[in-house]
Amino acid sequence: MKNAFQTVVLIGKITNPAIREHVLALANMLVARQIRVLVEALTAERLDIEGYPVVPLDEIGARANLAIVLGGDGTMLMVARELVNHHVPLVGVNKGRLGFLTDLTTDSMLQAIGNVLDGDYSREQRILLGASIVRDGKLESEGRALNDVVISKGGVARLIDLELTIDGEFVHRQRSDGLILATPTGTTAYALSAGGPLLHPTLDAIVLVPICPHTLSNRPFAINSLSRVEISLCGPDDALVHFDGQLHAELHPGDKVVVQRLEKTLTLLHPTGHSHYAMLREKLHWG
Amino acid sequence: MKNAFQTVVLIGKITNPAIREHVLALANMLVARQIRVLVEALTAERLDIEGYPVVPLDEIGARANLAIVLGGDGTMLMVARELVNHHVPLVGVNKGRLGFLTDLTTDSMLQAIGNVLDGDYSREQRILLGASIVRDGKLESEGRALNDVVISKGGVARLIDLELTIDGEFVHRQRSDGLILATPTGTTAYALSAGGPLLHPTLDAIVLVPICPHTLSNRPFAINSLSRVEISLCGPDDALVHFDGQLHAELHPGDKVVVQRLEKTLTLLHPTGHSHYAMLREKLHWG
Amino acid sequence: MKNAFQTVVLIGKITNPAIREHVLALANMLVARQIRVLVEALTAERLDIEGYPVVPLDEIGARANLAIVLGGDGTMLMVARELVNHHVPLVGVNKGRLGFLTDLTTDSMLQAIGNVLDGDYSREQRILLGASIVRDGKLESEGRALNDVVISKGGVARLIDLELTIDGEFVHRQRSDGLILATPTGTTAYALSAGGPLLHPTLDAIVLVPICPHTLSNRPFAINSLSRVEISLCGPDDALVHFDGQLHAELHPGDKVVVQRLEKTLTLLHPTGHSHYAMLREKLHWG
Amino acid sequence: MKNAFQTVVLIGKITNPAIREHVLALANMLVARQIRVLVEALTAERLDIEGYPVVPLDEIGARANLAIVLGGDGTMLMVARELVNHHVPLVGVNKGRLGFLTDLTTDSMLQAIGNVLDGDYSREQRILLGASIVRDGKLESEGRALNDVVISKGGVARLIDLELTIDGEFVHRQRSDGLILATPTGTTAYALSAGGPLLHPTLDAIVLVPICPHTLSNRPFAINSLSRVEISLCGPDDALVHFDGQLHAELHPGDKVVVQRLEKTLTLLHPTGHSHYAMLREKLHWG
Repeated sequence: MKNAFQTVVLIGKITNPAIREHVLALANMLVARQIRVLVEALTAERLDIEGYPVVPLDEIGARANLAIVLGGDGTMLMVARELVNHHVPLVGVNKGRLGFLTDLTTDSMLQAIGNVLDGDYSREQRILLGASIVRDGKLESEGRALNDVVISKGGVARLIDLELTIDGEFVHRQRSDGLILATPTGTTAYALSAGGPLLHPTLDAIVLVPICPHTLSNRPFAINSLSRVEISLCGPDDALVHFDGQLHAELHPGDKVVVQRLEKTLTLLHPTGHSHYAMLREKLHWG
Repeated sequence: MKNAFQTVVLIGKITNPAIREHVLALANMLVARQIRVLVEALTAERLDIEGYPVVPLDEIGARANLAIVLGGDGTMLMVARELVNHHVPLVGVNKGRLGFLTDLTTDSMLQAIGNVLDGDYSREQRILLGASIVRDGKLESEGRALNDVVISKGGVARLIDLELTIDGEFVHRQRSDGLILATPTGTTAYALSAGGPLLHPTLDAIVLVPICPHTLSNRPFAINSLSRVEISLCGPDDALVHFDGQLHAELHPGDKVVVQRLEKTLTLLHPTGHSHYAMLREKLHWG
Repeated sequence: MKNAFQTVVLIGKITNPAIREHVLALANMLVARQIRVLVEALTAERLDIEGYPVVPLDEIGARANLAIVLGGDGTMLMVARELVNHHVPLVGVNKGRLGFLTDLTTDSMLQAIGNVLDGDYSREQRILLGASIVRDGKLESEGRALNDVVISKGGVARLIDLELTIDGEFVHRQRSDGLILATPTGTTAYALSAGGPLLHPTLDAIVLVPICPHTLSNRPFAINSLSRVEISLCGPDDALVHFDGQLHAELHPGDKVVVQRLEKTLTLLHPTGHSHYAMLREKLHWG
Repeated sequence: MKNAFQTVVLIGKITNPAIREHVLALANMLVARQIRVLVEALTAERLDIEGYPVVPLDEIGARANLAIVLGGDGTMLMVARELVNHHVPLVGVNKGRLGFLTDLTTDSMLQAIGNVLDGDYSREQRILLGASIVRDGKLESEGRALNDVVISKGGVARLIDLELTIDGEFVHRQRSDGLILATPTGTTAYALSAGGPLLHPTLDAIVLVPICPHTLSNRPFAINSLSRVEISLCGPDDALVHFDGQLHAELHPGDKVVVQRLEKTLTLLHPTGHSHYAMLREKLHWG
């Protein structure tokens, strides 16, 4: 397994100049191990990194065997949405403190990534959601999310009125601030703030978490990840769709958002000994 | 007490034409009892009611001894915000089913209002909130609310960052979808959906309910109604203030919202025998 | 499929004499269809039903092709725990109103069960939990549950201290009133009252719901149903284990409760057209 | 104000031998300031403290001007219940980390208590609850609580059925694991774990927090502290009453628990600069 990662691409959080030195340190270490190093194009430009071949984000899948992300969970989400259709596994490095997705810190990264390159790691598959916006029966746009698809009221409305269908069966009509559809990965993010449960990453499930529902018994609801969920906006004309916290589109009454897991999964690599529970204990201040 | 209400103003929900016949029935009944009937100006115009002196909303305080609102809780809220500075008590009539604020139905209203006019009623005082938007140290605008003042993210932001001060003392900085400041009256409205507690209407308190807070231990917090609450928007530049569910203003980083109860209270009249708990049981499906 | 159910056993809620007439009506209908009718022994004795062969609960699996339960969810739970090791499917009939598990009412039962006998039904598999109490390394007792296994404080303790391990990995130590381990079926029962999410019955998951946890971020946690969960009581000496709401055992410090899903599942039959979502809407007053 | 505290009593957590040295250090410091030092009788005996006059807990009210408690919140609660009928103010010292009630640590105590003795402190009044158990119309027993009165199921029952009356008016009948009645002080304790709101200590309110209520809309409910609350046990015969986490009595069907705030309040002293919000931030990990 030692030679599995012959080409490694480095991707950094472009808004954080302090990331630069860590990208360079990693690149040096990789070169010293005779691994081919690529740098993602925007990373190279914004963090002013020279001397390595540059690769656009959407070509990483074809050209690298491993992607190392230096940044926070936000950068990981962005890269994950891009790489899910390829077989390039991801490792995440955070600056300062651990994230839910970035389980290495810059302090320990050289040692830990060395171990990964030596074949000393575990693999984990994460599902993503795909969502289509359908207007007047026609596909308006599409997107995907590693954490969550969120349909929510815009700035003016007091609440929105949504009709929910799962696998073609009417579930209910709910009045709320919105609805979160989260993957297991997303259950430690916005869904948790809205009162949702944690789902173990290996669970083949997605969870629907209403945001401030008018009916108090509208509780978080976990369903099979293969289910096809349709959410129709009944009104008013002031609703939005976000993917992983990024605004994707405005919704109009009659619009449908159709959500289903993507067939392909994302591969995360963790150094051997990584514990999901240890991460939860630390991030959620358990005990 | 029989002659306390010599002039009664009628106010109807202007978007509901079915209200017209009930306004007319009430007016007839009042005239038969030799009570002077006024009709609020917009009500007269939109519901096409003729034959009675018309009075603008902002003159009701000076010209009537009692206001009867036919509509829902939304109409009550609007009238309450206007009448709080006067001593005109309010009675609410709902069409079809009871509201939290409208404890008569059109079915029983002639009998029940007859009883009120005969002096057979109880009085209840409700507090309102006053809020000021302060920008660069200057008062930008003001408003008031019977239910709640809500500071919330706009459509783009994932969450907003607020700094909270009570009576001049720093409380904490919270990241959330927003913050609800609710009167006891408002605790059956939006605050309840956001996980807030119920407060009895006679409690001299306001409750701060965070909306989807990032820190799970940021819990609803009830404080003395006389406290002065300041909320500063730290960022981002995408936040809004609503009063009783009506959009009041956009907020920019550095803006402060200062909230304190109004000195004057609103007087609600209830037919003798009205029970707050019976209303909660019915509206919240208890038991 | 018409002749699939040649022998049908009837089981009634023994504490409700009003069930008797419905058991008799069902028996008559079955006999008229030339189906062999058995009556569960305790049902026959307590409800005074004569003229049919009697069968003890633990022999139903060997002697019947279908079990019809007339009672409430409590009776269903008891029968389900017994039948899970056999292949006898269950149909539930409730008196008066629907239960979460009993989706027929006595009013419609003759028609609906006739349809089932005609082959007009859907099948659903539900998982059960098996639990072992281990003391000083030795198996102390065992039990099973269709809804939930609950470890909770007894009457004296303010809270209990539990250590949780999943698949051999330490999760955390929690101080709380207790911990609920619920199947998807159980998520509409006690777990829901304790703040747990709903899980769709087809989800291969169990959910751990802490009861009044001292640490506010100890949230409900759904895991793969194949996981092996170990809960150790750290103290004090005042804790109990319940299966489906029935007291099973006292726990002492050092005791372990090991919970894992049973390999075999329970088969529920529903008349064609049965909707899980319709049941949730009705029982939870959605919309 | 310098000579206000001529006699100070010291009370330590008797189960913690490490408290001894801190009691002695405080006693030395007080003697050096020519203040008369008393030691509570059980404290003296269990912690082996000699050389100071000993005073039983129930005589402190008559003999001291100030009580200093070294221990945790549990010791504070016990002393508070005893001292509420007298005018002796309380200061709390915790070992290691702050408690919600003990706002000094042993590290800083000599300096901070010196300041208090110099008159440099703020006073705060806290309400307590008084509760009576009434059986067959006769007073069975009484008790009081600084944090909470809790009616809860015993070990066998799945849930209990309670009827709630406030100021003589029927509120509702609830099925739950129990009901917490908490003072503002108690809202950071058990009530918080059960989903209750925080109440500011100065709020004249008590909050009723249902424990795992069967009806999801049975929400925490804050009422005027002067209200008289009656809770009747409808069944089953397996319920308990705790005061401040201490088991007080078993309840039988038909028993009533009558709860009302005590007229007298407890006085807590805080060093000048003490901030309730700073304490919340630290204890609840805000921000």
